[in-house]
Amino acid sequence: MSPRFAPENYRKRMERSAAAAAEAGLTGLLIAPGPDLVYLTGYRPAAITERLTLLVLAAGREPAMIVPAAERPGAADAPVLLSDWADGDDPYAACAKLLGRDGRYAISDSAWAMHVLGLQEAMPATGYTSLTRSVPMLRAVKDADELRLLAGAAAAADAAYDEILRARFAGRREADVAAELALLLRKHGHSQVDFTVVGSGPNGASPLHEAGDRVIGDGDMVVLDFGGRKDGYGSGTTRTVHVGDHPGDEMRKVHDVVRDAQQKAFEAVRPGIECQEIDRAARRHITEAGYGEFFTHRVGRGIGLTTHEPPYLVEGETRPLVPGMCFSIEPGVYLPGRFGVRIEDIVTVTGDGGRRLNTTPPELRTVT
Amino acid sequence: MSPRFAPENYRKRMERSAAAAAEAGLTGLLIAPGPDLVYLTGYRPAAITERLTLLVLAAGREPAMIVPAAERPGAADAPVLLSDWADGDDPYAACAKLLGRDGRYAISDSAWAMHVLGLQEAMPATGYTSLTRSVPMLRAVKDADELRLLAGAAAAADAAYDEILRARFAGRREADVAAELALLLRKHGHSQVDFTVVGSGPNGASPLHEAGDRVIGDGDMVVLDFGGRKDGYGSGTTRTVHVGDHPGDEMRKVHDVVRDAQQKAFEAVRPGIECQEIDRAARRHITEAGYGEFFTHRVGRGIGLTTHEPPYLVEGETRPLVPGMCFSIEPGVYLPGRFGVRIEDIVTVTGDGGRRLNTTPPELRTVT
Repeated sequence: MSPRFAPENYRKRMERSAAAAAEAGLTGLLIAPGPDLVYLTGYRPAAITERLTLLVLAAGREPAMIVPAAERPGAADAPVLLSDWADGDDPYAACAKLLGRDGRYAISDSAWAMHVLGLQEAMPATGYTSLTRSVPMLRAVKDADELRLLAGAAAAADAAYDEILRARFAGRREADVAAELALLLRKHGHSQVDFTVVGSGPNGASPLHEAGDRVIGDGDMVVLDFGGRKDGYGSGTTRTVHVGDHPGDEMRKVHDVVRDAQQKAFEAVRPGIECQEIDRAARRHITEAGYGEFFTHRVGRGIGLTTHEPPYLVEGETRPLVPGMCFSIEPGVYLPGRFGVRIEDIVTVTGDGGRRLNTTPPELRTVT
Repeated sequence: MSPRFAPENYRKRMERSAAAAAEAGLTGLLIAPGPDLVYLTGYRPAAITERLTLLVLAAGREPAMIVPAAERPGAADAPVLLSDWADGDDPYAACAKLLGRDGRYAISDSAWAMHVLGLQEAMPATGYTSLTRSVPMLRAVKDADELRLLAGAAAAADAAYDEILRARFAGRREADVAAELALLLRKHGHSQVDFTVVGSGPNGASPLHEAGDRVIGDGDMVVLDFGGRKDGYGSGTTRTVHVGDHPGDEMRKVHDVVRDAQQKAFEAVRPGIECQEIDRAARRHITEAGYGEFFTHRVGRGIGLTTHEPPYLVEGETRPLVPGMCFSIEPGVYLPGRFGVRIEDIVTVTGDGGRRLNTTPPELRTVT
């Protein structure tokens, strides 16, 4: 399931990350199982459990990883110095040799609280901060291999959308259309489906609605937001369709506003611009059209080994876009009790602008 | 997917847990999304993300939960006082009102490191410890409803094993047999498959090998270790089979040793006995048979809403067994480069002994 790159590739990523930690004034990085560890070493333990696995990266030192003894064979391919601890040993004491007495480390956001508390207790003079806070862009810039995999995931999501347009909507439950979408994602190569939102009529006005028992009716607007993982990399796309050939005037208007906002945000993408400017470009257009109060979330977030990661395109995020970054642009307008419209593409930053990985036209499509 | 109990049931669990925290000298408990939160409130957010959700339990106070504003509608059924924080707010500052300035809390093991670090920074006088360390047996004693669900999951795993015995093994890749096992678990009602280990020949000697490209051969021993979730509760069982009708003498011998060790450990189960004694009972038998150095892991761990939780049956765990606890008993012998044998049942503690939830006979079965 996890993508596999050459060991040299991983070594470069680890070196670059240790350097970024040093630049941020840290001794190094502590990486727990999950997307950070897959990104840096290719290693994904069979399960994430209470047993400590930890990669320690520090500039000028060989990458070192401590694993439970029983899991050592599975970790043998990781291009790191391996050490292990056995059931009954104190894993935090075993870490002391790798961490030193008074280092300051950034640790994976989703490392378990019990582990960071165990390290603090075993080594009271060490300090910790979260990776997203200190080195947020660790995985944000994608290399050519990663971009190829992300484009493949996006193409598969587009193909699933193309097929669902031919499905029957009216008279079916949202959950049934959602199940069909999930099957289509798998058919087009997804190994994992993370979400299949089908928000019909008033349900479309709740941005986090997934799919329920509501029976879709003729005349409904329907938000379709779906994605998952293909070859280890994430997809995510949203289109809003209308059931029947005659969408009302306001439905057309809101759809045009969101589509144009998405386009304006896309056109703002270029190296060096602050993340928040992408959010502002979409928000300005929607506000000028009179729907500002109904656009209730940030315009986008990064995607890669996960479907939710830095960079976050949100007011207050002043870090600059860098070529190779990948993220969603997904403005929406939600009219409570009536309907919602959201349009989302995955976009990557190029040398002089942006490129959409989703290539489905954003026009309002009608379904039956 | 999550089991649903009556609100009264959840209120009792929260009260009992807050009391246990007070007994352990703590101000209260901080519960993050995951099995602890499902157990205590029935609430499972659509996804566990970087956005903070936290339940605060303290003796004599109404249970209170803080959630991201966008997720508030989904949490409305939880029998707690709800409050929320919006994108852009500081969620840790928002927690300060709930936690007080200098409380001492146990926090869910798998709460994100970034959140515990955020709480420590926002409230430097508060103290934290992990739930497993301070109140380890929070979910360990199962009530009658939970035991019924665990027995149902075990019966489904047994049924899957029964069917896989009729499958062809020789000439197929481990991964193909594993995929068939996964389908069988789903056929028998599992909504989630967590692991399907197929360790043939030398791969069986690696306790955490999953399933790979090795083609299973006539004369192989094959470790089959599989489980997942049915109606929200976990299953897990292991049997070791032989391909062909004539297992070698040492294969038979090792299988007998492991089977008898498993039985001896099972017979040791009774209320009041220390957890480590169950491990010792199996280990003593295997050691006396001359294979002690090849039994490289603890004999078992608890099961419930997860497949990996307290109680841990391991040397050094001196807490006593209590009626209603549920755990695996799974001794193994792993002969490097040759083969492995592991046998696992889920067992619950009764008023005067133990009861197996898996009822598949442990004898060595042959497959084709």
